[in-house]
Amino acid sequence: MNLKIEKLIKQFAKLPRVGNRAATRIVFDLLQSKTDKAQNLAHALLDATATIHPCPVCGILTENTLCEYCSDMTRQNGCLCIVRDISDVYVLEKAGMFHGRYHVLGGSLSGVAGITPDDLNLSNIADRIKNEHITEIIFALPNTVEGKTTQQYIMSAVGNTGVEFSELASGVPLGGDLDYIDDGTLVLAFGDRKKL
Amino acid sequence: MNLKIEKLIKQFAKLPRVGNRAATRIVFDLLQSKTDKAQNLAHALLDATATIHPCPVCGILTENTLCEYCSDMTRQNGCLCIVRDISDVYVLEKAGMFHGRYHVLGGSLSGVAGITPDDLNLSNIADRIKNEHITEIIFALPNTVEGKTTQQYIMSAVGNTGVEFSELASGVPLGGDLDYIDDGTLVLAFGDRKKL
Repeated sequence: MNLKIEKLIKQFAKLPRVGNRAATRIVFDLLQSKTDKAQNLAHALLDATATIHPCPVCGILTENTLCEYCSDMTRQNGCLCIVRDISDVYVLEKAGMFHGRYHVLGGSLSGVAGITPDDLNLSNIADRIKNEHITEIIFALPNTVEGKTTQQYIMSAVGNTGVEFSELASGVPLGGDLDYIDDGTLVLAFGDRKKL
Repeated sequence: MNLKIEKLIKQFAKLPRVGNRAATRIVFDLLQSKTDKAQNLAHALLDATATIHPCPVCGILTENTLCEYCSDMTRQNGCLCIVRDISDVYVLEKAGMFHGRYHVLGGSLSGVAGITPDDLNLSNIADRIKNEHITEIIFALPNTVEGKTTQQYIMSAVGNTGVEFSELASGVPLGGDLDYIDDGTLVLAFGDRKKL
């Protein structure tokens, strides 16, 4: 097979949820398309990487100084929802029961994957709690060993500052990722969150 | 969600075997990656679309005047294997029992999808049969209504030129795409091909 095509397939196969076969299909679809599908995709990617950056406060991707949630003055202050991935924020927003502020870790602690606290977006957590007068932190992390470990780590790191911690009620199936849960379950889990 | 990100997700979701959720995961993975993953992918895509074109003889994608199979003088002449997609060629090559020439249609006739003979790479079939002294045409098309219709159309279009037609033996599961079949089955189906 042509080397450039093989290289392209390998690059697509590295993307999450894309295997070798899907990557092959994708590459041939793109290279055979009679429209500018491939070029448009490439240019959109370059444009996005050039203009989009993480929000310095919460870590959500944005084109502006602050993200749409941190800059939204109508949102409730004092309540911080900590999630693993940016995509989790949109899942929660779609369910629509949380109106506070977000904080995206960008991962969860994992000995296996060698992800340490330094790899997570935690440097400004203490400042946020102080400056934003945070009274409650809601952990909306995956219900996995990594998620719970991360939760425990953050709780001990924040320490006894009078902040109330809570986690999603177990409505979140064990081992489940947030973006695989239907909105109804998320609403229940949010209402049923238990104090720690 | 940021409009550029939404647009990018929509573009990825249009790719074969990529749904909305996978597209979201892919886009956030690319935009959050600390390496130049996204830029590299974009540049590889642009480079490929700029240099790669279909072989004028058989339709396989190549960077050269003729593709690797049409320009390979060691391959057997006189026997033409007609496939639907370029990826099918690599599946057959991997199985390794065919050493003749290929012809890629780029699709199969479909009333539903509105794919007519004009949409397929058929214009030079008659010339190939004449110039390359083709004595056998092997149809390695999907074992579907569309595949069989396409096969029938080509047989009647070629007409009574003394060319021997054959199709893969039914070893190919009904409704199956070529690139989902293991090499062993393909070897059997090739050896067991039946005259039409």
